[in-house]
Amino acid sequence: MAVLPAHVLFGAAYYHEYTPTYDPELRPDERLKTDLDLMVDANFTVIRVGESVWSTWEPENGRFDLDWLQPVLDGAHERGISVILGTPTYAVPPWLARQYPEITGERRTGERIGWGARQEADFTHPAFRFHAERVIRRIVARYADHPAVIGWQVDNEPGLHLFHNHGVFQRFVDHLREKYGDIETLNRAWGLVYWSHRLSTWADLWTPDGNEQPQYDVAWREFQARQVTEFIGWQADIVREYARPEQFVTTCISYTRNGVEDDEMSDRLDIASGNPYYDMQDGLLLPDPTPDDHEQVWKTTGVWSMYQTADWMFSSRQEPFLVTETNANSIGFCWDNRPGYDGQWRQAAWAHVARGARMIEYWQWQTLRFGAETYWGGVLPHSGQPGRTYAEVARLGAEFDKAGPLVAGLEPDADIAMVYSMPSKWLMQKYPPLSKPDGAPDPASYHRIFDPFYRVPSTRAARSGSCTPGSCTTRAAGGRG
Amino acid sequence: MAVLPAHVLFGAAYYHEYTPTYDPELRPDERLKTDLDLMVDANFTVIRVGESVWSTWEPENGRFDLDWLQPVLDGAHERGISVILGTPTYAVPPWLARQYPEITGERRTGERIGWGARQEADFTHPAFRFHAERVIRRIVARYADHPAVIGWQVDNEPGLHLFHNHGVFQRFVDHLREKYGDIETLNRAWGLVYWSHRLSTWADLWTPDGNEQPQYDVAWREFQARQVTEFIGWQADIVREYARPEQFVTTCISYTRNGVEDDEMSDRLDIASGNPYYDMQDGLLLPDPTPDDHEQVWKTTGVWSMYQTADWMFSSRQEPFLVTETNANSIGFCWDNRPGYDGQWRQAAWAHVARGARMIEYWQWQTLRFGAETYWGGVLPHSGQPGRTYAEVARLGAEFDKAGPLVAGLEPDADIAMVYSMPSKWLMQKYPPLSKPDGAPDPASYHRIFDPFYRVPSTRAARSGSCTPGSCTTRAAGGRG
Amino acid sequence: MAVLPAHVLFGAAYYHEYTPTYDPELRPDERLKTDLDLMVDANFTVIRVGESVWSTWEPENGRFDLDWLQPVLDGAHERGISVILGTPTYAVPPWLARQYPEITGERRTGERIGWGARQEADFTHPAFRFHAERVIRRIVARYADHPAVIGWQVDNEPGLHLFHNHGVFQRFVDHLREKYGDIETLNRAWGLVYWSHRLSTWADLWTPDGNEQPQYDVAWREFQARQVTEFIGWQADIVREYARPEQFVTTCISYTRNGVEDDEMSDRLDIASGNPYYDMQDGLLLPDPTPDDHEQVWKTTGVWSMYQTADWMFSSRQEPFLVTETNANSIGFCWDNRPGYDGQWRQAAWAHVARGARMIEYWQWQTLRFGAETYWGGVLPHSGQPGRTYAEVARLGAEFDKAGPLVAGLEPDADIAMVYSMPSKWLMQKYPPLSKPDGAPDPASYHRIFDPFYRVPSTRAARSGSCTPGSCTTRAAGGRG
Repeated sequence: MAVLPAHVLFGAAYYHEYTPTYDPELRPDERLKTDLDLMVDANFTVIRVGESVWSTWEPENGRFDLDWLQPVLDGAHERGISVILGTPTYAVPPWLARQYPEITGERRTGERIGWGARQEADFTHPAFRFHAERVIRRIVARYADHPAVIGWQVDNEPGLHLFHNHGVFQRFVDHLREKYGDIETLNRAWGLVYWSHRLSTWADLWTPDGNEQPQYDVAWREFQARQVTEFIGWQADIVREYARPEQFVTTCISYTRNGVEDDEMSDRLDIASGNPYYDMQDGLLLPDPTPDDHEQVWKTTGVWSMYQTADWMFSSRQEPFLVTETNANSIGFCWDNRPGYDGQWRQAAWAHVARGARMIEYWQWQTLRFGAETYWGGVLPHSGQPGRTYAEVARLGAEFDKAGPLVAGLEPDADIAMVYSMPSKWLMQKYPPLSKPDGAPDPASYHRIFDPFYRVPSTRAARSGSCTPGSCTTRAAGGRG
Repeated sequence: MAVLPAHVLFGAAYYHEYTPTYDPELRPDERLKTDLDLMVDANFTVIRVGESVWSTWEPENGRFDLDWLQPVLDGAHERGISVILGTPTYAVPPWLARQYPEITGERRTGERIGWGARQEADFTHPAFRFHAERVIRRIVARYADHPAVIGWQVDNEPGLHLFHNHGVFQRFVDHLREKYGDIETLNRAWGLVYWSHRLSTWADLWTPDGNEQPQYDVAWREFQARQVTEFIGWQADIVREYARPEQFVTTCISYTRNGVEDDEMSDRLDIASGNPYYDMQDGLLLPDPTPDDHEQVWKTTGVWSMYQTADWMFSSRQEPFLVTETNANSIGFCWDNRPGYDGQWRQAAWAHVARGARMIEYWQWQTLRFGAETYWGGVLPHSGQPGRTYAEVARLGAEFDKAGPLVAGLEPDADIAMVYSMPSKWLMQKYPPLSKPDGAPDPASYHRIFDPFYRVPSTRAARSGSCTPGSCTTRAAGGRG
Repeated sequence: MAVLPAHVLFGAAYYHEYTPTYDPELRPDERLKTDLDLMVDANFTVIRVGESVWSTWEPENGRFDLDWLQPVLDGAHERGISVILGTPTYAVPPWLARQYPEITGERRTGERIGWGARQEADFTHPAFRFHAERVIRRIVARYADHPAVIGWQVDNEPGLHLFHNHGVFQRFVDHLREKYGDIETLNRAWGLVYWSHRLSTWADLWTPDGNEQPQYDVAWREFQARQVTEFIGWQADIVREYARPEQFVTTCISYTRNGVEDDEMSDRLDIASGNPYYDMQDGLLLPDPTPDDHEQVWKTTGVWSMYQTADWMFSSRQEPFLVTETNANSIGFCWDNRPGYDGQWRQAAWAHVARGARMIEYWQWQTLRFGAETYWGGVLPHSGQPGRTYAEVARLGAEFDKAGPLVAGLEPDADIAMVYSMPSKWLMQKYPPLSKPDGAPDPASYHRIFDPFYRVPSTRAARSGSCTPGSCTTRAAGGRG
C-alpha cells in the first residue's frame, strides 16, 4: 500500500504550461500565483501535473526542456500543496511520429491510425519504448527529490486501442507457442478442426482482422490486456529507480478501456487509481430516471453507476484508491453540455470517499480554450475567473479540511460479492448473448446482465419512497473473476 | 434427374471428426457407435459428411489423410444409412492461405478479406483451383466405390462474396470484349457518353468499386454469378470422372447469396438442393404475426416464407429437390435463440415434402462446442445426450418411415406462375425503387415487391379465421425470369 | 456585372449528344429539329450545352472532336435561342484516369476514390490541369465567336470532395508556413501545447485523417475551399482569353457542397449561378408540413427553404443571379419520386425571379435513359414526347415572354440581414453544438440554428391562416460572414 497523507487529498489536474497560449500578454508567474492562491482558498492539497506534454518536455528529438515545471512545484510546496507528477507517454510528439512512422498504431493489420488525437502509438514498439524511456528518466531524475512530489502517475488512461501491428501479432504467436507447446494442442484447445482452421505450423495463424472464432478472440483480448499491463509495469519499474521510498507510483485507469485488465495492472502499482466521469444534473437524481436501455460508456449515468465505478476501483486491489480524474463540471463534447446543480459536487465526492477514495482530483483546474476538450468544464471557466463551480468546490474543500483523517481510507462494508469476469466480457463483446431492440447483437451484453444486480436495490428502495442517499445504496463491493 | 431412393431421405450433417476435440478421453469408435445407433432409432436414412474439413483431409500441403472417414461410412452402411459426401473447398486450410496469399478474396479492389471465417478465397484463382482439384480427386477417388455413398455435394453454399480480385476483373473485361466485340458497341449499349464515361480502349474500364452506372453494375453481377456457376460445374465434372452412374452430384444452395444464380447453376448438377433456415416459435404461427417490414435474410420468418423458399428450390430445375440443410433446432447466433415448440419440426418437414423435398437433412447432428456456430442447435445438444429435440425428430422419422414412397417426389399443383428475375433483383439492390421509412434506399426492394404477392392469400385466409395449414397455403410454384 | 438580355432567360440543359444512344435508328438532325422547335413553342430563350462530355470532346488523349456541337448552336441561333457553353472538367475521361492514376482523388490519405461516378479527380494535380487546360482552350477557341453563345459555365457544381492527396496536403503545409511565418506562432495560434501536438518543424504536421484538433480542422476547410475557388478562377481566366467582351463567365454552384465558399468564388466570376433543387408535391405546400427535424441536403424541402436558397444565391455577389439548374420534374433517385402538382413549376420559378433570378434553366430537357440519374425528370419524359410537364413549362414560358423586362433583375427588399459564417459552419460540422435525439452529434447543427430564424415568420403567418405566398415570405436577404 502506498504511503498517503492522513487526510483525503483534494485538488485538480493543473496545466500551467497552457497559460502563455491563453494570454501572451499575461506574465505566467502572475497567473501561477493567482491559480495557486485560489487553490489554497479552496483547501486544495494536491495537483497533478506534466502528463500531457511530451512535446513540451522534449520539443525536438533529444532536446529536453525540463525546467518549466520548477516554479509550479515550488509554488505548490510553498503553499503546502502536494504534487503528483505524470510521465507524458500517452501523447506522442509529432517529431517522433514523423521520424518513426512504424510506431503508428494499427487497428486493422496494415491500416495506420491517423495522428492528431492521442494514444495513436503502438506502445510495444521498440522505437517508441526507446524514446519513452529516455524522456521518463529525464523527468523523474530531475524532480524525484522535490519535496512537493508525493507520487507518480505513469502514462494516462492506457489501453485505448487494440493494436494489430505486425510486431504485436508476431509476439501473440510466440505467446501461443509458449503457452500451448505444440500446434496440435492449440488445434484441439481452440477446436480448429471446425471450418478447416487446423494449423500445420505456427506461421499458419491468421491475423485477427477477419477472425470469427471465439476461442481465438478471447486469447487475443487476454494478450492485448497483457501488453498494457506490461507497459505500465515497465514504466513503474523505471520510475522506482529514482523515486523516494515514500512516493507512490500509479496510473489513472479509465475502467471501460478495451485494453485494460485493471486487476493485474494494479498489481504492478502501489495504489489503484481511476477516472470516474458521470453525468450531473438529472444523471444524479434519485429515484434514478435513467432508462434501462441506456448504455454506460466512459461517462456513466445514474447514482448507482457512480457507486459501481467506485467499487470497481476499490476491487482492483481490494483497497482504498485514488480518484485521479473526475468531472469538475459538465464533461464531454459540445453537443452534450450539462453543468451540475448546486450540491452535486458534494454528492459525488462524498460518495466516492464513502467507498474508499483517498483523493478527489478534478479534471481540470481551468476549462481549455483550445483542442478537442474545450467543453470539458474546469473548476475555473474559460475566463479563468472563479464562479459558481469554484464556489461549490471550495465549499467541499472546507468540508474535507474539517473532516480530516476521520474520512480517509474508508472501506465499504459489503455483504455481497459480485464476480466481474474480463474473459466473459471480452467474449460477450464479440458474441453477445443479448440483442438490441432491432435484433442486432448488443456488445454491451455483459453489463446488461451484470448491472441490474447492482442497480436493483437502489431502484426498489427509490420506488418505496424511503430512499436516502445513505440508506438506499448497495453494499456490494466488486470481487474479481 | 438424379437416381434417388423411393422414400424421402431423412437425416443430418454429421461431423464425427469433431469428437476427439469434444472429449479426448472418449474413444471415437464408441461415440460413433452411439451416434449411429441413435440415428437408426430415429429412422435416419442419410447423413452428409466431410465437406467442412479440408485441413483434416490435407493437414499440410500435399500430405493427405483420407482414412479417417472409413469407419463412418462403414458404420453407416452397416445400419442402412446412406451417405452424401462433400468436397471441402469452401473452407480453405491456413497453410494454403499462408503459401498463396494472392488467393485471398477482395471485396474492394486491393483490400484483402481477413482469414478466420470461411469462403475467403477467390475461388477463380488458379493457385486455389490447383489445390482444390487435387484434394477433390483424392477424396472422390478414395470413396466413390463405397456402397454407402449415394451422392456428392460439391462445395457448400457458394457465392457468399462478390470478388473484386485483379484476375476476376480482368476476365470481366475479356468477357465484355467477347460479348460486345468493339468498344463503341459497349459505349452505346451502356450509355457511356453520359458523364464522360466513353471508353477509348478496353483497358479504360474502371473497377467496380466506385461505379455508379447501373448498366455496368448489372453486367458485373451477371458475370459474378457466372463465376460461381462455372466453379460448381467444374467441380461436378471432376467428381463425375470417378462417381458411379447412380450417384448424384449436387451442391447446397443458400438462395439469398449475392453470387448465386440458382437456375443456371442447377443445370450443371443432377438435382437442386437448398438450405432453408427459418425461425421457429412464433415464426411459424398462423395467422402470421410477422410485421410487413420484416426483412427476410438467410433465415426467413413466416410460414409463407418457408413455402416460398421451398418453391424457389423446386423452381431451380422445376423438379423435386433435396433439403441439404435445415435447422435441427434454434438457428443463428447467441443473441437470437428460439428453439422450436413441440410439433414445429413436423410442421416444417411436411411442408417441405409437400412442395417437393426428396430429403430432409438437418444441420446438424450435434450442437457444436466450439467455433462461430455454437448456437446453431443440433439434433443432440452440447452434451451429446438425446433430449426433446431428438424425440421430436425421431417421431418425425417414424412418420416418414411409415409414409414410405407415398410422399416421395410430390410436385406442387400451381395455378399461378411467378417470374423471379435475377437481373431485376441485382439492379434493384444497387438502385432500389423503394425507400425505407427514413427515406434511405431499401436494397431489399425486389422482395418487398415480390413477396406480398406470395404472402397475401395466406394472410387473407388467416384473417377470415378459416385457415388451416393445408388450405391457406398458396399454390404458386416459382417460374423463372 | 454580366451583360444579360433584358428579359428573364428561360430554358434547359440540353444533351443532344445522347440522342444516338437513345435511338440509333433516328437521324440526329431530325431529333435536333424536333427538340429545338418544341423549345421555341415553349418560349425557351436559352440552353446550356457541352459541360458533361469531355470524353466526347476528346475521345482519346489528344484526339479532339469539336464539330459535333456546331449544328446545335446553329439550330439554336436560327431560332433565337441563346446558349451557355460549359467546360467539361467535372467528368474525367477514362483514358485520362488510366494514363495518370495519380490524379485520382483521395478522401483519406492514400485511399483512392473509385472511378465510375464524377468529380473523382484531384483537380489541383498538374497532370489533371495540363489536360483540362488543353481541352478548355480547344472548346472555347472553337466556339467563342458563335453568335448564339452568350456566356460560359466553367466546370459544374465544384467542391464535391475534400481531397487528401499528397500534393494538396503539402501545399496546405506551405500555406500555413506562409501564413504563420514560423512554427512557434502556429503552435501558439492553434494551442498545440495541448496533448503534445507542438510542432518542431513544418514537416511534423500530421495529415487531416485522424485529426481531432478543431483549430487544424477549420484551417483545413478554409484551405480546401480556397482550392476550389482558385480552380474556378483559373478556368475563368483561360476562358476570358477567348471570350467576347459581352459574354459572361460563371459556374453552377451547389451551395451545400463541402468544398464551396460561394462568396470568394463568385468574385472570380461575372455573375453568381446556382442549382436550387427542391421537393415538389407537399414539399411546396403552405402551411409547411415539413417536420422541424427534417435535414435539408442538396435538395431542400419547404417553400421557405426555396426562398432561403434564392437569397443565398443573391448574397454571393449581392446581385441578381442565374438559376443554372433546377428540377424540371421529380428530382433524385428512383426510391424518391414525386413529380410536381400542376402549378408548382410556376410557383417555384416566380419565387426565384422575385428574389433576383435572371434565368430559369431546367435540368434537363429530356429524362435520361441511362446512367445514374435516370430518375431525374426532364421537361420531356423518357419517351421524348411532350406531356404534362412540357405543358406546364410552356405555360410558364408564355408568362415570362409576356412579362418581358418588367421582371428581369428584381432585387429583394430586405429589412433584416442574416450573417452566414462559413468557418462557423465548418467548425460545427466537426464539433456540433447540438445533438440528435439519440444523443449523437448533429453535423447539421449550423443550419439547425440558422434556419429557424429564416423559417419562423412563414410558419407563424401560416398558423394564423392569413398566409399568402407574397405576404408570408420573409424579407431577409443573406449577408455574409
